[in-house]
Amino acid sequence: MKPVIVVHGGAGRIFKEREQGSRDGVIRAALRGYGILKQGGSALDAVEEAVRSMEDDPHFNAGCGSVLNEAGEVEMDAIIMDGKNLDSGAVSAVKCIANPIKLARLVMEKTKHMLLTDHGAHMFAQAMGIPETPGEKLITERSRERWKKNLEPDSNPEEFQKDLGTVGAVAIDSEGNVACATSTGGLSNKLIGRVGDTACIGSGGYADNHSGATSTTGHGESIMKVVLARLILYHMEQGMSPEMAADTALDYMKTRVGGLGGVIVVNCSGEWAARFSTKQMSWATVKDDQLHHGIYAGERHTKSVDEALASESGGF
Amino acid sequence: MKPVIVVHGGAGRIFKEREQGSRDGVIRAALRGYGILKQGGSALDAVEEAVRSMEDDPHFNAGCGSVLNEAGEVEMDAIIMDGKNLDSGAVSAVKCIANPIKLARLVMEKTKHMLLTDHGAHMFAQAMGIPETPGEKLITERSRERWKKNLEPDSNPEEFQKDLGTVGAVAIDSEGNVACATSTGGLSNKLIGRVGDTACIGSGGYADNHSGATSTTGHGESIMKVVLARLILYHMEQGMSPEMAADTALDYMKTRVGGLGGVIVVNCSGEWAARFSTKQMSWATVKDDQLHHGIYAGERHTKSVDEALASESGGF
Repeated sequence: MKPVIVVHGGAGRIFKEREQGSRDGVIRAALRGYGILKQGGSALDAVEEAVRSMEDDPHFNAGCGSVLNEAGEVEMDAIIMDGKNLDSGAVSAVKCIANPIKLARLVMEKTKHMLLTDHGAHMFAQAMGIPETPGEKLITERSRERWKKNLEPDSNPEEFQKDLGTVGAVAIDSEGNVACATSTGGLSNKLIGRVGDTACIGSGGYADNHSGATSTTGHGESIMKVVLARLILYHMEQGMSPEMAADTALDYMKTRVGGLGGVIVVNCSGEWAARFSTKQMSWATVKDDQLHHGIYAGERHTKSVDEALASESGGF
Repeated sequence: MKPVIVVHGGAGRIFKEREQGSRDGVIRAALRGYGILKQGGSALDAVEEAVRSMEDDPHFNAGCGSVLNEAGEVEMDAIIMDGKNLDSGAVSAVKCIANPIKLARLVMEKTKHMLLTDHGAHMFAQAMGIPETPGEKLITERSRERWKKNLEPDSNPEEFQKDLGTVGAVAIDSEGNVACATSTGGLSNKLIGRVGDTACIGSGGYADNHSGATSTTGHGESIMKVVLARLILYHMEQGMSPEMAADTALDYMKTRVGGLGGVIVVNCSGEWAARFSTKQMSWATVKDDQLHHGIYAGERHTKSVDEALASESGGF
C-alpha cells in the first residue's frame, strides 16, 4: 500500500490575515506526517505528528492559538483513533498543556479508558510527566483581542465563530492501517466546560481499517447531531467513494440541522477527499510523492514533495 | 400513534442482592414514564422522568447508588436526545447533583452547546439554581464497600464492573416523536475524569424521528469503539426490525472488539426491543396498557398496567 496523508486546518471563513499562515501550516503538517509514512512509520504516528505541528502553529485554533472561553482561558479537546482495533483516546476541556493530541494518545495507550476530562485529565497529564505550559503561553494576541471584542455589548461572536480553525489529519500507512486525529480550542467565548464534537468518537473523527478514516471540522454541535464522522464511513461501507460519502454527509448535515463544516477522508484503498460546505477550508494531501493543497472551493495546487520540502527549508 | 416506553436498569451480571430491587425499579420507572405519555406528554418528558426515577433509586448505578471513582467519589455522566430535531444535551464527570439527567436537559434547552463537563457543568448547575447534593448523600453502603474491596491488593475489580447498572429509557409519544435518555455513575474505581459512552452522542444513546431511539448499557469503552447507538439506528434505516438491529449490532460489538452490553430500542412505528449479550439486563416496557418486564435471557412477564399500578401502590 502506498501511504497517503490528508490534513485540514479548519473549515469556515478564513480571515485574510490568517490565510497565508493557514496554507503554509497545513502544507508543513502534511509533509511532516508524510515523512513518517515514507520511512515506514505508522498512520497513527503520522496523524499525531501532523496535528502536533498544527497545535504548535499559532495560525490554528488548537494548542497555541486556541480561541478563549467566556472566562478568557484556553480549554481544548482532542481525539486520536487507530483503525486497526478501533481503539481511541481523547481528552476534553484540558488546559495548560501544549499538545492535547499527545495526551489523547497516552489516554489510549496507558489507560483502560478512552476519554478523560478537565481535572482528571490534568492529573493524568501530571502522572505521565507532561510539563505544564502556563495558560498565557497558549494565548495569542489575536485570540485575546477577539475574546475582548466578543464581550462588547454590540459584538457579533457568530461572525468570529465562523473562523474556526480546528485541525485534523487522516492517513493510511504502508501496511494498510488507517488512523485519524483531531484537535481544537472549540468555540470563541464558549461556556466553561463546553465540549464539542472533537472529543466525541464518531463525531470529531473515526477510523476503521475495513473502510477508512475521517476527521471533521465546522460547527461542532451540528457535527454531533448527525455523528458526522461515523456517517461518512457508513456511506463508504455502502460503496461510496470518499468524495461522494463526504458530500452526501455534509449535504445531510446542512439540510437536516442547518450546519456547515468540512471533512477530510481516506479510504482503505488510499483514495482521498477534502470537502467542505463552508466558504473555505485549508487542506493539504500527499500521495505518490505529490503534494496537493487548497483553501477555496475548486482550488487545487500540486507540486512534488521534493519541491515543497525545498521551499519549506527555504524559509517557508 | 400509541405511546410506548422501554427502560433498562443496566446490562451485566446482576448480583442476587440487587435483583429484586432492580426488577421493581425498572417497572416503577416504566410506569412513571408511561403515565406521562398517556396524558399526552412528550417522549422527552417521559424518558427524563423514567431516568430520574432510577437515578433516585439506590439499586442502580446512576444518581444515588452510583459506583465510586478511584478517589472514592461519585462522578456521573448523562445524556438526553430529542428525535424531532436531533437536539441533545449531556453532562460528563458531574458531582454533587441528584439528577444529572435534569442537568443534561437544561444543557439542551438553555445553552447553545450540547455537552458540558466537570467544573463548567457544576458552574452551570449553580447558575440554573440546581441545589447542591452533598457527595456523601449519593454514596450507598454497597458502593463504598465495593470501592474499598477494589482497593485491596488481591481485588478483582473486573468482577464488580460486570454489575454495571447504568439506566436508560426510550419512548415514542402520541405525536410520533421519539426520545432517549441515559444516566450512569460509570465504572467502579475508574480514573478521576473518566468519561464513558453515556455522555457521547451516538454511543450512549441516539434518537431520530425518521427511524427510532435507543439507549445503551454495558462496557462503555466497547460501546464507544463501535458507536453502538448510532449503529443500531443505521440498521433500522436499512429496514431491520428493532430486535434484529439490536442483535446485529451487539454481535458486531462482541466479535469486533470483544465487548458485551445491552440495548433498548423503539422504532418510529412503535415496535420495540430489549436485547443483551451479557448474562442479564433488567428491563421493562409498556405498550397498549400492558407491562412487560424481565431480567434473564428469554424471561418475559406480562400484566396489565392497572394491575401493576395496584401492586405498586400496595407497597411494591
